[in-house]
Amino acid sequence: MKIIKGGVTAPKGFLAGSTSCGIKKSKKTDLALLFSTTPCISSGTFTTNRVKSGSVVLCMQRIAKGVSQGIIVNSGNANCCVGKKEIKDAMDITEAASARLGIKKDLMLMASTGIIGRPLPGAKIKNGLSALVGDLSAANGTSFAKAIMTTDTVHKEIAVQINIKGRAVRVAGAVKGAGMICPNMATMLAFFTTDAAIKKDALKQAFKESVYDSFNRITVDGDMSTNDSAIILANGQAENSVIKKNTRDYFIFLEAVKFAAKELSRKIVLDGEGATRFVEITVKGAKTEISAELVARRIANSNLVKTMIAGGDPNWGRIAAASGSSGADINPDRMDIYFGKVLVMKNGAGVNVSRGLLLDIFRKKEIEIVVDLKSGKHADRIWTCDFTEEYVKINAEYET
Amino acid sequence: MKIIKGGVTAPKGFLAGSTSCGIKKSKKTDLALLFSTTPCISSGTFTTNRVKSGSVVLCMQRIAKGVSQGIIVNSGNANCCVGKKEIKDAMDITEAASARLGIKKDLMLMASTGIIGRPLPGAKIKNGLSALVGDLSAANGTSFAKAIMTTDTVHKEIAVQINIKGRAVRVAGAVKGAGMICPNMATMLAFFTTDAAIKKDALKQAFKESVYDSFNRITVDGDMSTNDSAIILANGQAENSVIKKNTRDYFIFLEAVKFAAKELSRKIVLDGEGATRFVEITVKGAKTEISAELVARRIANSNLVKTMIAGGDPNWGRIAAASGSSGADINPDRMDIYFGKVLVMKNGAGVNVSRGLLLDIFRKKEIEIVVDLKSGKHADRIWTCDFTEEYVKINAEYET
Repeated sequence: MKIIKGGVTAPKGFLAGSTSCGIKKSKKTDLALLFSTTPCISSGTFTTNRVKSGSVVLCMQRIAKGVSQGIIVNSGNANCCVGKKEIKDAMDITEAASARLGIKKDLMLMASTGIIGRPLPGAKIKNGLSALVGDLSAANGTSFAKAIMTTDTVHKEIAVQINIKGRAVRVAGAVKGAGMICPNMATMLAFFTTDAAIKKDALKQAFKESVYDSFNRITVDGDMSTNDSAIILANGQAENSVIKKNTRDYFIFLEAVKFAAKELSRKIVLDGEGATRFVEITVKGAKTEISAELVARRIANSNLVKTMIAGGDPNWGRIAAASGSSGADINPDRMDIYFGKVLVMKNGAGVNVSRGLLLDIFRKKEIEIVVDLKSGKHADRIWTCDFTEEYVKINAEYET
Repeated sequence: MKIIKGGVTAPKGFLAGSTSCGIKKSKKTDLALLFSTTPCISSGTFTTNRVKSGSVVLCMQRIAKGVSQGIIVNSGNANCCVGKKEIKDAMDITEAASARLGIKKDLMLMASTGIIGRPLPGAKIKNGLSALVGDLSAANGTSFAKAIMTTDTVHKEIAVQINIKGRAVRVAGAVKGAGMICPNMATMLAFFTTDAAIKKDALKQAFKESVYDSFNRITVDGDMSTNDSAIILANGQAENSVIKKNTRDYFIFLEAVKFAAKELSRKIVLDGEGATRFVEITVKGAKTEISAELVARRIANSNLVKTMIAGGDPNWGRIAAASGSSGADINPDRMDIYFGKVLVMKNGAGVNVSRGLLLDIFRKKEIEIVVDLKSGKHADRIWTCDFTEEYVKINAEYET
């Protein structure tokens, strides 16, 4: 596997375009289109929030069939909490877009991100379609990644190439997300493309595993969005021998998707609203899988832990307190805590460590926290960021 | 019932004292003592965190017997995560204090608050005992309330008087708490005194109900402490006819304890770290009690909701999103949201309301958010505060 240049249009046969149709007051691009020149098999995972955007509802219905050819994305408006109009808008917009592209309307997916509770400006979007479709090009992967941004400070994309029985196959992705990033489908939009020829069940399985291990294992602020969507399109244009589940080729493909998803989820955390530090929380020695996850998530979502990291303050007591309140069945008298490789709490009691050493660890941009419960064999790992005054500023001022 | 002057020493026979023994670098008072001239029946509720301070462990053991006479409290050090020394320190300190007061050591309770993971300076505390006991006076209720503070900006106390069959009976309380305030025993210390003569089971029941309705229904930052303790001492010196469970007198007494507990819990939220606004979140129309509580707590602990309130921004979409991600079984298409009396979302869709009107509501110091799920008869209510840059500043700089 090697990293190659570009984003979602790096795989063969994928085009992207973007335009500014007037949803965002800033006049930045706010409408994006991803299109494959041939129909793709597709798979997706979506927010588990009970309150779902109309765009998500439409997408979930259409992707269930497993064949798609394009995704239209608007940023600046979530198309959520406006009633029945949401689904109607999503249907109208995808229908208009598919008509222009000459494909069946059911092949067009939609995703939205932005403010909740404000009707989507459907007319503006439809007026923008001509420019949007006109912009389609294999050179526009990066502008696609830019057009889906909201409070993101950088665009996020990646592309890799693997070799399937002598054929070059590409996997690529673009994501947006910086706030409302939380357990179970981080608040984000993630779009993956691949020119692999692959069986539908193999694509679904590989994508599910990759999302579980990446986007479902990050948190910025513990708030779960109404719009989370992760979608993969595979158009088969690499003309490799078709990848089947649980074969050697499958695992090569899986590794590529996992790598791309992890890299992109890492970029989301690094771009977390107001974040200045990347934090990896590992919990091991747990009695059960769920215990490991509960403790890791509780630490990752603790405001006291996250502000402590923002302050560069190695106050491990807050990690112990968060672990104890996670609801997991833990024995505090067996618990060890490490900052990086340095043991700071052993069997529930503080260890005498040079404060200078810990301050050095906390000055780094990447901080590793390890909790060893020494009670079993299960482990989990969550990525998060610190919690700064800047986060509050961004979210107090985010305009309704 | 009437509110009277003073705090924990307003009921007959209670004395309080405080001193500065050197735990806090600031030289502020950091050691406090509450003492009844006669033994009391006692009851308490404590943190459900698996990681518990040695002071809490000792207290839980001793209060199980239901007879106590004094409480020694230190602020500035949590006596937690230092291993077996925690319990030994708590035993030594309470033993030394009880010896000076001439009471049995098992009658002395202990509470600690402050930094986790640093050994309690037992020698400093023992050296301070002479000044502490020498300061005991019925006039020192307020200085007791001040000595238990950590990041609190104001001391918090209340006293009320009720009439039990012609006898004046007093109920009073003092609390500390400003951060690490969370579901299930807010991170706080709460000490209640009463001169009521009351049966042990009646005291226990009344106190449990009062805590459930007050301290267990507030949240500042969603972090649960290792040291939460709420304790009530009843010395019977009002010489009223003994209050028995579920009698008319019991309900008069219950009302007084509930009132005091609610007032003090309200003061904690108002003094929440960095808080500028008091927020009442009411969820009604829930299918089950647990659904109501899940939704209310999710909203109350949502950083996006809390920063929005800090910013004075009536972005109700964040409330809808938080509700939907609470895990409760809700129907988004039936959900209504109100700011104060103003309906902003009806049946899952935004209502056209003047933005000026909403901005006015959000300029107030007290904000009421009501979510009506219209799916059943259950309700819950949680008090919280907004989430400001100041909170982050306080917690990023809190010294280890």
